[in-house]
Amino acid sequence: MPIVTVLTDFGLTDPYVGQVKGAILGVAPGAQVVDLTHAVPPQDVTSGAFLLWSAVEVFPPGTVHLAVVDPGVGSARRAIALQARRGDRMVGPDNGLLLPAAERLGGPVRVVELSEPRYWRQAQPSGTFHGRDIFGPVAGHLAAGLALEHLGPPVVDPLRLALPAPHGLDGEVMHVDTYGNLVTNLPAEALPARYRVRLGDHVIEPRPHYAAAAPGALLALVGSAGLLELSAREASAATLTGATRGTRVQIEPA
Amino acid sequence: MPIVTVLTDFGLTDPYVGQVKGAILGVAPGAQVVDLTHAVPPQDVTSGAFLLWSAVEVFPPGTVHLAVVDPGVGSARRAIALQARRGDRMVGPDNGLLLPAAERLGGPVRVVELSEPRYWRQAQPSGTFHGRDIFGPVAGHLAAGLALEHLGPPVVDPLRLALPAPHGLDGEVMHVDTYGNLVTNLPAEALPARYRVRLGDHVIEPRPHYAAAAPGALLALVGSAGLLELSAREASAATLTGATRGTRVQIEPA
Amino acid sequence: MPIVTVLTDFGLTDPYVGQVKGAILGVAPGAQVVDLTHAVPPQDVTSGAFLLWSAVEVFPPGTVHLAVVDPGVGSARRAIALQARRGDRMVGPDNGLLLPAAERLGGPVRVVELSEPRYWRQAQPSGTFHGRDIFGPVAGHLAAGLALEHLGPPVVDPLRLALPAPHGLDGEVMHVDTYGNLVTNLPAEALPARYRVRLGDHVIEPRPHYAAAAPGALLALVGSAGLLELSAREASAATLTGATRGTRVQIEPA
Repeated sequence: MPIVTVLTDFGLTDPYVGQVKGAILGVAPGAQVVDLTHAVPPQDVTSGAFLLWSAVEVFPPGTVHLAVVDPGVGSARRAIALQARRGDRMVGPDNGLLLPAAERLGGPVRVVELSEPRYWRQAQPSGTFHGRDIFGPVAGHLAAGLALEHLGPPVVDPLRLALPAPHGLDGEVMHVDTYGNLVTNLPAEALPARYRVRLGDHVIEPRPHYAAAAPGALLALVGSAGLLELSAREASAATLTGATRGTRVQIEPA
Repeated sequence: MPIVTVLTDFGLTDPYVGQVKGAILGVAPGAQVVDLTHAVPPQDVTSGAFLLWSAVEVFPPGTVHLAVVDPGVGSARRAIALQARRGDRMVGPDNGLLLPAAERLGGPVRVVELSEPRYWRQAQPSGTFHGRDIFGPVAGHLAAGLALEHLGPPVVDPLRLALPAPHGLDGEVMHVDTYGNLVTNLPAEALPARYRVRLGDHVIEPRPHYAAAAPGALLALVGSAGLLELSAREASAATLTGATRGTRVQIEPA
Repeated sequence: MPIVTVLTDFGLTDPYVGQVKGAILGVAPGAQVVDLTHAVPPQDVTSGAFLLWSAVEVFPPGTVHLAVVDPGVGSARRAIALQARRGDRMVGPDNGLLLPAAERLGGPVRVVELSEPRYWRQAQPSGTFHGRDIFGPVAGHLAAGLALEHLGPPVVDPLRLALPAPHGLDGEVMHVDTYGNLVTNLPAEALPARYRVRLGDHVIEPRPHYAAAAPGALLALVGSAGLLELSAREASAATLTGATRGTRVQIEPA
């Protein structure tokens, strides 16, 4: 039975994530449920979309990705499921959260609206917790083998959300990770063979790995998501530079 | 093999929760272990009892719920397991932690004291970590099919703990969740068809879902546990109102 | 299929741990993956080694323990796997992280360098995320039954890291846990039949369990790892004493 990953902004202090898993496993008892993260900043769909995008590739094709960052829960916003070209399925709100990750897996080849209550926990879901009442059970059904088209009618216009794109060699910080690494939106392919990075007053040289810099020194490298990252050896680049999400980052050929 | 849920006040910075899971899986290698939460405030049995109560219903009947909030660990307080009418089993200290959740699942139909060391990790458990040495292995045995009565003699007087009950339309905040939602002890059934909520100087109107309020505005709705909640759209009701656990909440018919 | 435990300093706010699990499960779909902790202080190998040491014993022999606290990732530091006398396997960087835990399980009987890219996620791993690209897939192969010697050539000189040892009755605080308990490096076997503990200006008496002390009072007991711990009933010994890792602790026969 496939893996079901779960990404939310629910945090880990409440039993909300556990209830979503109960809903998944109630339908698909043998599913392998894996947490991606539950620390998406509350209701920050763009951040959730980026983190989901960054994480899906390592999972085997056919994985079901359940993601909930859903400020519109209970309103008229649609709930969707989609299938990516690689075979992975995704379930969540139709607010753009899923699409960047789907693009990374070859693009969505089918998108449906979740309109069939028979695949939900109850015909009248709560107005605040579709993770438990709709998305969890639907992910369980997909893991258990249900074909996507049973879940509801096709959606031809899923809401798209643009992750900030770089302009040539001019990018920005997309995410500050737990170590204070600054993950930018500049892909490895965009980098000249020889370059340095300007961030505010800092000029940062590329290094092949952390230990190639002096302790405490800033360095630039291509991180695990295939994006330029600015780091500091055994220190926090975020603290050293003051950079936050959105801070401008410029590449200079060297 | 059934699901085993785990709820504790152990936090996630130490490897204590992992060791409980090792103890469960050492006995029941195929169990599906699911975290409810490990962020119960340290030794706050009432809070743990409420969070367990709020989360158990979504799990399939037959699930084993292991809960440890246990300031009396190592003392003469009893360790118990129980079976609820719906078929679920629960394991934990006899300090009231399990009973509200058991009531939600139809009430306890059998309660036993854990007195048989053959089902523990070791005959002489540590004085501080019964989660690893007693509760985990016992939950594993229950998941693997052991009948409750083998664990020890019946308990006729499990310690009961009263969650604060509302007085008619006069209730209180039971829990502040990670979003700052104020979960009250007022059940949906107690609410008049038309009402408003008074909390300190605030008069709060009901809305069907978050997006029906103005951004930053307070609203009242029935939350996912079937209780009245006070929330704020894309904001924290706890911050906006200053309310904490125990703050009085009054319903006024409108 | 065996359990695979995971201990890292990745934190839980990024989807890094989830990706490691994706890499494990991509190779070993039926593995039982269990988190030990992901809150090792960033790049603190000694702390990670202690926490791993404290947690491995409860898992069944044959478990695979994957640990990543790896300031040298991407540099020339070796990656290793080992087998302990009890049958458990361990995977991680060759920086001393694994050895204390291996000693607890009978000592390493075989250590190999991870030099065979066929067992990695990709022949060219990223320079920053060997947890996903090397250690996760290798742990998956071990869980799926691969013999250790296929992973690479023997290592005769794995890097050893000495956890601080006590000098007779003179020890120190090794770890402050989430409750503020002070876990020392003094093993139960070293304690006289009757003793008291001196920590700064405090003289602390032993008690069999927390509830045997007055509320708020300090007490000494042998904790779940078999080490002397200083605690406070329903309070934090760390806060009450100001002690931190490295604070001196002296036993006085009484």
